[in-house]
Amino acid sequence: MSQAKAYAATSATTPLAPFTFERRTLREDDVNIDILYCGVCHSDIHTVESDWGPSEYPVVPGHEIIGKVTAVGNKVSQYKIGDIVGVGCMVDSCQHCAHCAADLEQYCDNGAVGTYGGHDLIDSTLTYGGYSDHIVVREKFVLSIPETLELSKAAPLLCAGITTYSPLRHNGIKAGDKVGVLGMGGLGHMGVKFAKAFGAEVTIFTRSESKIAEAKRQGADHVIVSTDEAQMKAAAMTFDYLLDTIPVQHDLNPYLSVLKVDGTHILVGLIEPVEPPVHAGNLVMKRRILTGSLIGGIAETQEMLNFCAEHNIECDAEMINIQDINEAYQRMKKGDVKYRFIIDMKSLKDA
Amino acid sequence: MSQAKAYAATSATTPLAPFTFERRTLREDDVNIDILYCGVCHSDIHTVESDWGPSEYPVVPGHEIIGKVTAVGNKVSQYKIGDIVGVGCMVDSCQHCAHCAADLEQYCDNGAVGTYGGHDLIDSTLTYGGYSDHIVVREKFVLSIPETLELSKAAPLLCAGITTYSPLRHNGIKAGDKVGVLGMGGLGHMGVKFAKAFGAEVTIFTRSESKIAEAKRQGADHVIVSTDEAQMKAAAMTFDYLLDTIPVQHDLNPYLSVLKVDGTHILVGLIEPVEPPVHAGNLVMKRRILTGSLIGGIAETQEMLNFCAEHNIECDAEMINIQDINEAYQRMKKGDVKYRFIIDMKSLKDA
Repeated sequence: MSQAKAYAATSATTPLAPFTFERRTLREDDVNIDILYCGVCHSDIHTVESDWGPSEYPVVPGHEIIGKVTAVGNKVSQYKIGDIVGVGCMVDSCQHCAHCAADLEQYCDNGAVGTYGGHDLIDSTLTYGGYSDHIVVREKFVLSIPETLELSKAAPLLCAGITTYSPLRHNGIKAGDKVGVLGMGGLGHMGVKFAKAFGAEVTIFTRSESKIAEAKRQGADHVIVSTDEAQMKAAAMTFDYLLDTIPVQHDLNPYLSVLKVDGTHILVGLIEPVEPPVHAGNLVMKRRILTGSLIGGIAETQEMLNFCAEHNIECDAEMINIQDINEAYQRMKKGDVKYRFIIDMKSLKDA
Repeated sequence: MSQAKAYAATSATTPLAPFTFERRTLREDDVNIDILYCGVCHSDIHTVESDWGPSEYPVVPGHEIIGKVTAVGNKVSQYKIGDIVGVGCMVDSCQHCAHCAADLEQYCDNGAVGTYGGHDLIDSTLTYGGYSDHIVVREKFVLSIPETLELSKAAPLLCAGITTYSPLRHNGIKAGDKVGVLGMGGLGHMGVKFAKAFGAEVTIFTRSESKIAEAKRQGADHVIVSTDEAQMKAAAMTFDYLLDTIPVQHDLNPYLSVLKVDGTHILVGLIEPVEPPVHAGNLVMKRRILTGSLIGGIAETQEMLNFCAEHNIECDAEMINIQDINEAYQRMKKGDVKYRFIIDMKSLKDA
C-alpha cells in the first residue's frame, strides 16, 4: 500500500478538499504512475454533485491522466520506469467477453471499471481518479504517450479526444464529407480538429453570432447560427454527419433536418431523455440515423494518441493548480473555459 | 380523357361513397391500367380522415394496385396490352435529382408524387388512387407482376411489402442475424416473411400472450411478450435488428435495451413525435442506432416482387367488395384483419 495525496468530494454539496488514502500494493500486472497532469471533465462535476444518481463518496475525480511510470509489477512487459503514460476513463474490464475481445472494452458485457467511482474487479474497493499524486493501474489499461505530444496539453485527449475521435473513425468520416459539430466546448473543439484531420468539410453550429469568430479560430470551414431560421433552412439536407457534443437537453429536430438522406446524427454529450422528442418523420422520411458513441476502446485510444502526435493535434487548455479546482468547476458551469482545464499536479505535491 | 368509377371521401367525416371523375388522356409514356385488386393500407384511413393534416378532397385512396394493361402511350416500351402490372405509393418524381438517379425516388429532392393526394407534375391535377376502375400512370412507375405470383394476394406487396423489404435489404439482414419484429399487422407479418427468407432468426414481440400462437403461425422462430418484464430482461442485448412496424406512439426504450452493441432499431410505422422520449443513454452507452425507412424505390420494388415470386411470399389477406370499405376501415381500427384487406375491384364494375 502507498499513501496518496488527493482532492476529494465527501458529499454532493461540499467543495473538493485535500484527502489522503491508500493506493493498492502493485499487482504483478500493475503500473504505478506519478501523475503530472489531469484534465477536468464535465463528468467530474456530474459525479461530484451526484447528478447521475447518488455517487459513492468520497469521490476523487479525474480520468484524463498523464504521468510518469515509477514502478511496475513483475509481469509488466510494455512499460518501464520513466515512461510517460496516460490513463483514460477505464482502468479495467472483464477481458473475456466478446466486446473486450473486440477491443471495445467500453462496452464490456460485465461493465468496464471507471477510473473513479468504479469498483476494482479483484478487491472490490472504490476506485479513485486522477486528482491525486499517483495511481496504480493494470498495464492493459495504460496508454503510451508519444514523445512528440506536448505533455501539458495531452491529458484531455484521454476523454474529450477519444470521445470524438472514435465515432468519427467508426462512421468512416473521410475527405469530402460534410460534417457539422454541435457544441464548442472541450468535446466540440476536439471534434473539429479530428474531422478536419480526416479531410472533412467542417461546420460549427452555434446559437450565438458572438461565437462566429471563435468558431473560425477553432478551424471550422463554416459557421451556422442555429437560432437563425434562414441559415438553418438554407442548410437543409446538406450534411452527411453531425457530431453532437451538447451535454444538455436540446431539440434535435432542426439539426436532423440539415442531414441528407442517410445522414447520421451522433450523440456523444447527451445521456438524458431526448426532449423535446425527435419526430419520427425526420428519420423515416429521409432514412436518417440517430446514434451515439461512448469514449473508445484501449487500442483505439492508443491509435488516437498516435494520430494526434502525427497531426500535431492538441487540446486548447488552461492550466490550473489543484487549489483552484472549485473555482474552475464554477467557471465550467458558466462555459467560461477555452476549452479544458488541466490541473498541474505539481501543485498538489507542493501543497 | 376517360371517365373513371371510384369510391371517394369528400370530407374527413363522411364515409367513402361512389364517385366519378376523368382520368387524363394517355401521354406518350403513360400506361392505362384496368384495376383488378387494390389493397387497403392504414395510410388510406389516415388520409381520408385528415389525420396527418388537412387532406385535399375528394380523396380516392388506394396505393396497392394490381391490374391489367389496356392501353399504352406510343413511347411506352416496357409494357403492352394484356400485361399484369402493379402500382405502389408513387406515380412520378422529378427524375433528375441525385436520389432519382440513384433509384431512390421515394426520397426525391423535389418530392415524389403520391398515387393519391399528390399533384401531377405536368398538369398539377390532384391524383386519385386505386379505389377506382382504372388508372393512368407513367411507365417508369409501373411494376411488372411476375406470372407466378398469386394475383389476388399480391396487391399489398406494393406498400406493406416494399416498406418492410427495403430496410431489411438496405441494412443487409443475412443468415444468422437475430431480428425482432414489432407489430403483427400488415407490415409486421410481411417483415417476418422477408426476414425469414433472408435467413435471419426471427422473433415477434407482442403485448399479449393471446397472440403467441398466431405469431408462431406467421413463421416466427420465437415470441416475446413485451409486457412481461422477465422475458424482456432475458432478451437484453441479444438482437441485431428490430423492425418496428407499430403505427402509434410507443415507448422505444424497452425495445432498445434488447439490442446488442451496434444494434439497429428501424422505424417504418411511426411518423409522429417519439413519445415517451428515447433515453439518449440507450443509444450512447451501447452505440445503438435508431433509424427509419420509407417504402422503397421503383427498381427495388421490382426486385421485391421478383423475390416474392421466387420465394412464394404473399400477403395474408381477406378479400372484400368495394361496398364493404367503410366497414373494413372500422375493423382495421380495431385491428380486426389478418392482415390486409384487398378490394376485389370487380365489385366496382358490377355496382
